[in-house]
Amino acid sequence: MSFSNINTAILTLHCIDEKGIVSFITDFILKNNGNILELDQHVDYDANRFFMRLEWETEGFLINKNKIQEYFQTLVVNRYQDVVWDLSFNNEKQRLAIFVSHYGHCLYDLLARYEMKEWNVEIPIIISNHLDFKHVVERMGLEFKYFEVTKSNKSKVEDEQIQLLKDHKIDTVILARYMQILSPKIVKEYQNKIINIHHSSLPAFPGANPYKNAFNRGVKFMGATAHYVTNELDEGPIIAQDVIPISHKHTLEDLKRRGRDIEKIVLSKAIYAHLSKNVLTHNNKTVVF
Amino acid sequence: MSFSNINTAILTLHCIDEKGIVSFITDFILKNNGNILELDQHVDYDANRFFMRLEWETEGFLINKNKIQEYFQTLVVNRYQDVVWDLSFNNEKQRLAIFVSHYGHCLYDLLARYEMKEWNVEIPIIISNHLDFKHVVERMGLEFKYFEVTKSNKSKVEDEQIQLLKDHKIDTVILARYMQILSPKIVKEYQNKIINIHHSSLPAFPGANPYKNAFNRGVKFMGATAHYVTNELDEGPIIAQDVIPISHKHTLEDLKRRGRDIEKIVLSKAIYAHLSKNVLTHNNKTVVF
Amino acid sequence: MSFSNINTAILTLHCIDEKGIVSFITDFILKNNGNILELDQHVDYDANRFFMRLEWETEGFLINKNKIQEYFQTLVVNRYQDVVWDLSFNNEKQRLAIFVSHYGHCLYDLLARYEMKEWNVEIPIIISNHLDFKHVVERMGLEFKYFEVTKSNKSKVEDEQIQLLKDHKIDTVILARYMQILSPKIVKEYQNKIINIHHSSLPAFPGANPYKNAFNRGVKFMGATAHYVTNELDEGPIIAQDVIPISHKHTLEDLKRRGRDIEKIVLSKAIYAHLSKNVLTHNNKTVVF
Amino acid sequence: MSFSNINTAILTLHCIDEKGIVSFITDFILKNNGNILELDQHVDYDANRFFMRLEWETEGFLINKNKIQEYFQTLVVNRYQDVVWDLSFNNEKQRLAIFVSHYGHCLYDLLARYEMKEWNVEIPIIISNHLDFKHVVERMGLEFKYFEVTKSNKSKVEDEQIQLLKDHKIDTVILARYMQILSPKIVKEYQNKIINIHHSSLPAFPGANPYKNAFNRGVKFMGATAHYVTNELDEGPIIAQDVIPISHKHTLEDLKRRGRDIEKIVLSKAIYAHLSKNVLTHNNKTVVF
Repeated sequence: MSFSNINTAILTLHCIDEKGIVSFITDFILKNNGNILELDQHVDYDANRFFMRLEWETEGFLINKNKIQEYFQTLVVNRYQDVVWDLSFNNEKQRLAIFVSHYGHCLYDLLARYEMKEWNVEIPIIISNHLDFKHVVERMGLEFKYFEVTKSNKSKVEDEQIQLLKDHKIDTVILARYMQILSPKIVKEYQNKIINIHHSSLPAFPGANPYKNAFNRGVKFMGATAHYVTNELDEGPIIAQDVIPISHKHTLEDLKRRGRDIEKIVLSKAIYAHLSKNVLTHNNKTVVF
Repeated sequence: MSFSNINTAILTLHCIDEKGIVSFITDFILKNNGNILELDQHVDYDANRFFMRLEWETEGFLINKNKIQEYFQTLVVNRYQDVVWDLSFNNEKQRLAIFVSHYGHCLYDLLARYEMKEWNVEIPIIISNHLDFKHVVERMGLEFKYFEVTKSNKSKVEDEQIQLLKDHKIDTVILARYMQILSPKIVKEYQNKIINIHHSSLPAFPGANPYKNAFNRGVKFMGATAHYVTNELDEGPIIAQDVIPISHKHTLEDLKRRGRDIEKIVLSKAIYAHLSKNVLTHNNKTVVF
Repeated sequence: MSFSNINTAILTLHCIDEKGIVSFITDFILKNNGNILELDQHVDYDANRFFMRLEWETEGFLINKNKIQEYFQTLVVNRYQDVVWDLSFNNEKQRLAIFVSHYGHCLYDLLARYEMKEWNVEIPIIISNHLDFKHVVERMGLEFKYFEVTKSNKSKVEDEQIQLLKDHKIDTVILARYMQILSPKIVKEYQNKIINIHHSSLPAFPGANPYKNAFNRGVKFMGATAHYVTNELDEGPIIAQDVIPISHKHTLEDLKRRGRDIEKIVLSKAIYAHLSKNVLTHNNKTVVF
Repeated sequence: MSFSNINTAILTLHCIDEKGIVSFITDFILKNNGNILELDQHVDYDANRFFMRLEWETEGFLINKNKIQEYFQTLVVNRYQDVVWDLSFNNEKQRLAIFVSHYGHCLYDLLARYEMKEWNVEIPIIISNHLDFKHVVERMGLEFKYFEVTKSNKSKVEDEQIQLLKDHKIDTVILARYMQILSPKIVKEYQNKIINIHHSSLPAFPGANPYKNAFNRGVKFMGATAHYVTNELDEGPIIAQDVIPISHKHTLEDLKRRGRDIEKIVLSKAIYAHLSKNVLTHNNKTVVF
């Protein structure tokens, strides 16, 4: 749910489970005159872990907006163990960078959503190792940055890319069919902040040729998977997946054509969940509220 | 989620929304030493209504099990407006009656689940206006009650059926492709406690011949709908639905054959949600946690 | 299946069913040295009607390409009763016109596919009753034609639009969320050649507010339907549909947001089937091979 | 499609592709006064292989029913290369054996379909390495054969099982969650005639604990796969698959509960396709018409 006409604060938090967390935190918000609009919570009993997402109106909240972070740390977070938490405000535009190579269907789709203001974001930079989509990006008045990537310059290029992302204050990196494996230094810098789209229903068919492998195996469904990037290729936490039925009538070309459609939809579904702070990640698994 | 090895209490409640309900109720449970295992809540902003399902361990809870109902009424429910609520315990076997005519696929499926103990239920009585499945029921050691229903005796039969349901302390009535419309007196007696399976994706194709109508319209999907029975035919609150793709290759016979499979699965999905107290109903709509 | 590197002829034909049609036609192709690449056939026994799509290589075919139409009429079609048939060649670019109002998601998606050459088409004209997407169209070097439509000028505008479609030799008209009902004269001119996208899983929720109606009814699935336009609003032959699960958690805004994604995918799926000559229409139903 | 009131012959055939096969065979049927009811054909261009299923009325066919096999071999099959073919008649009851261990959901489902005469089959024998379902089988008047299987006696037991299958003239073996790996001698005897249900969307999660592995990986979909058994575990040709969405809310128990439903539906879907002679297998892939 999105509250477009109301200013809200969003708390996401996960920690070792114990009695009374929901009660304490909701009471804390309430006592400080916060109007809770949405509350999601989940307990993973196997992992003994508590997950929560809480959204409340900032209007009338007794703690000043720029003090909420500090007060929560002191009065709430410190009470619990092994807490991973985040505070954000729904009126803050998040800043995305898109990486693309020469498959354009995800890029086109993202740019269309951007121009139609589907999400509350800025996309200050599109980065590519190819020049195919320079004109598509630039005619929209956006910045396209080309890096020629070779084996020998890859490390240097990534340093420049990291600098560029920092200069543009990028919150989240979208790999829109970017055909390069990111090295650990960039992954570490943007942990759980790089979203990749893989063109199979992982863990089936990881690696470079999922459509061909699916075709050869004769499966009756194929899919797409959006996941956070980790240093293990195609093994990061899964945010969203979708599948479609296929049959012997579909050629490899058909799989690719139809695959493009689920790829772009699944990628955007994952981005929306991420931007809405609905994705909490722990131990390589996600809770998606 | 089901907690098969723990004794739990389950509260479902919906009321006019106001600040602090989650906080108050969770605090109440906590203060009385209740260990909350699962909490689901939802606010319908259009209807200004708050929905909640709360499950906690009864072991160690300071309020005696047979006093919880009274204490909650006094200390919790009375604080809020227009409250609809229910308290139950997960170790209580719920009692189902099944109504069937001469399509057996849902009945067979329900009886198989019963014998395999998929649900924590008793099925003391199967009622039919046909004799087709008498042997199927009776060879399992269950009671089969046949009623010949005619236009002239329908009202009298329903009186006998209501009495039978009461004698057997039936909580929930399952219409497993029962080809009779229940009259208001039986519907009123078991409000939101009679689950019907309709063989279309309602509201498309209500009425008696959904497969034929779907076939004639040339739709590309067909479905099944499980809903609570109200006095408006096929208009009751929807609990569960599912759909499958169809094409010109499917004859009317194919639709019926494939339809049977989604009918039985959707019906059981709805029954499971109902038995788990995951279905809250307000204004002809359900919240299914 | 598409044969991008081979020149092919495509015959679609439906007629009253009788013995030996497949045998006669495939033999005719074969005798004239045609290499059949794809053959689809279907018999609708209820309607007693035979449907066929046949694609063969034109290279080496003994009948000259510009004589095939005539020879087929004389030697094949005349043998059968109530024949509806079409002959086309896969290397001919089909010409589309897009009508749009002020929802842009389908338009953006179509233009992206166009620029990425997903289909073998020309789109010489985009027509709108609003100016919202003028810049989007024109910056791609395409022609955008604005018509102010009022109650009083609607008939005159449609005459101009028909003229414009004829001037541009348009084969197929795409209504990409065009918010005007086309009058019979334009429908008649482009029978089974105007594809509309409706934002529900027809026949559920026809008319103007399907998302709102779906929301109010509390259904658990929503969908989109691409169909040929007839004079009966939302009653034309269905080409493609898709559905997605929804729940109480989805607000009306969520339904609209998620609906946009299935709308654009279903519309494109239908267009692809239509362009590939895979859609045969008879008695308000389609056979989609 | 099934033609329950007509006697038909069904030819399935696949061979190296060449020009004119459809034309020749349909002409052959026609010349001998056969009324073709259904024709499916497919060309796999990568494998250069032609697949066909043809069903025609035997009433009035000029070749005597018990001579069709011989005539086809001589006059049709011998013309083509590397032909794999089968001839059957729709009024012949096929004979199934079911193997089961101690998960009963598939068995119950199969027996229910059997008793409701959904398929035109006999099930003369149900074989198990456990006694759990003896009463379920026997109260229906069917034969239940128990084999205690140990490491040391497995080979001997399989010899007895093969003999039993032969004595009962079994056409097709159904592994309804049978928890033993069949050895090559039994697999060889019933090539493409043993159907297994695997409780994952293969090739994801092969092996013994797919639900646990799916749960641990945090995937958003899970599935079931029906396939012919080969000597490579879980690698045989896939006949049917289905998937359902899952989320963090589902415990391992939930996955198992929901998995049972897709397992039994997918298994029956595969059996129906197999019995209808709609499944053609080549190079570890199926064509399912």
